Amino acid sequence: MSLPLYDTVCFIGIGHIGSSLARAIRVHKLANRLVAVESSPAARETALELGVVDEIFADPALAVPQADLVVVSTPVGAIEAVGRAIAPHLKKGATVTDVGSVKMAVVRDLGPSIPDGVHFIPGHPIAGTEHSGPASGLADLFKGRWQILTPLPGTDQQALDSLTALWSAVGSNVELMEPQHHDRVLAITSHLPHLIAYTIVGTATDLETTLQQEVIKFSASGFRDFTRIAASDPVMWRDIFLNNREAVLEVIQRFTEDLTQLQRAIRWGEGEALEQKFATTRAVRRAIIDAKQA
Amino acid sequence: MSLPLYDTVCFIGIGHIGSSLARAIRVHKLANRLVAVESSPAARETALELGVVDEIFADPALAVPQADLVVVSTPVGAIEAVGRAIAPHLKKGATVTDVGSVKMAVVRDLGPSIPDGVHFIPGHPIAGTEHSGPASGLADLFKGRWQILTPLPGTDQQALDSLTALWSAVGSNVELMEPQHHDRVLAITSHLPHLIAYTIVGTATDLETTLQQEVIKFSASGFRDFTRIAASDPVMWRDIFLNNREAVLEVIQRFTEDLTQLQRAIRWGEGEALEQKFATTRAVRRAIIDAKQA
Repeated sequence: MSLPLYDTVCFIGIGHIGSSLARAIRVHKLANRLVAVESSPAARETALELGVVDEIFADPALAVPQADLVVVSTPVGAIEAVGRAIAPHLKKGATVTDVGSVKMAVVRDLGPSIPDGVHFIPGHPIAGTEHSGPASGLADLFKGRWQILTPLPGTDQQALDSLTALWSAVGSNVELMEPQHHDRVLAITSHLPHLIAYTIVGTATDLETTLQQEVIKFSASGFRDFTRIAASDPVMWRDIFLNNREAVLEVIQRFTEDLTQLQRAIRWGEGEALEQKFATTRAVRRAIIDAKQA
Repeated sequence: MSLPLYDTVCFIGIGHIGSSLARAIRVHKLANRLVAVESSPAARETALELGVVDEIFADPALAVPQADLVVVSTPVGAIEAVGRAIAPHLKKGATVTDVGSVKMAVVRDLGPSIPDGVHFIPGHPIAGTEHSGPASGLADLFKGRWQILTPLPGTDQQALDSLTALWSAVGSNVELMEPQHHDRVLAITSHLPHLIAYTIVGTATDLETTLQQEVIKFSASGFRDFTRIAASDPVMWRDIFLNNREAVLEVIQRFTEDLTQLQRAIRWGEGEALEQKFATTRAVRRAIIDAKQA
């Protein structure tokens, strides 16, 4: 496909993911012009100072009408309001996508606002660090990572091809999936691990002060790996859990049953059951290494 | 202190930690001679081939009598039997230490076997990878890591100084602690995180095959961090949970209460409670970064 893929790309929200994609688009010359709509004055200032986009506005009416691609990169909880705010200004033939970590809720909340003649292709980059804000963006964040797109039935093939080309150009491997299936897979690979990490770090913060300081001091023994995950953006994660409620509650239930089983084995000194369980999980690590995802 | 610190060091068990320490002792010239007792013929062969130690035996009677320092580096569950096997052969004035991840059980199981005139100083290096066996040893494994020693009341100061000097020489920061306190701190920083990681990876392995393959494919979204921990040695971890039962059950209980609270907040859509919890845990990550443990 010939470059640039889009004339103007507009980001709604210019945080960690939005600013990373803006940087990547610039590096790979995938658009002529980058604009953004951002409600936080501090984030607007930072994004402009760092040259992440060419122009930035508080009002969608000033940025959206020119855009051939609109990337909604706000927390998922804000997406319904974003849809209503951008809908009247969307250019005919433009594509609207998002980067939310849940997809059914995005289809539900953003879909109805998209007018006829505008292409709506929800997406989710499996990428990101525990950092937030426009200054934390990285041009190579998506390199070698998965980009899941969840196009709805009847999606325009050309619009899908262009969006796929964009994500491929920034280094991602693009995978198509049903929104419902996406939410179920991510509930186990991402949402449950984050919830568990938040929980265990929270459990530690409730300890008395001396013990808490020692937990920090000796965190390298396992705990540390959880704290990185539990440092992720609180608003983004609040919205993910509220918007993938059923799938998340289902995996919490499975997890709790499994934990209770191990707890019982520890209480009753069932060494064989423990050893057998721990040997099984080792195989999963090997599979991840074999799949080159380690 | 003048080098070498010990004439002969004997390892009982030459797995990941034992072989790492042996390599480190050799690199830093802390002993004249390294020997080991190892029950697995395969591990004996590997350790000899790689030159991890000078001589290796199946029978403690052939290795222990010469040793000035005996490092018990078997899984904790084997330590009581090790104590009985080495006790008759220990040289007067020698020091016995261990590298087990629990300390109360080691004091309980190994302590009674140590004859008068032999110094017993339990220890625990907060170091290690998810790999096992003598081939996985790394000479710089202990560099910049904590070494906890839990000397009992009345421990010989010179013996303690020599052992402290050894761990310092291989790069560790040595910290003294009561065995009971060690077990409580490690239950939260290490044992609970490992149990949780084993559980969540186990939950994923119980999924139907297609979904499981996708979990592996998209593991970078959080799950992957848990699989590394859950790939740790099954026998070692079985023994840790069985030998720090009370402290582990206590922290599982706290963790489960906290998880239930978050689960309830998700079910009832309590966004504020979730956001507030997630914001708190971010501070712990910052504290770990400030403590240079990240």
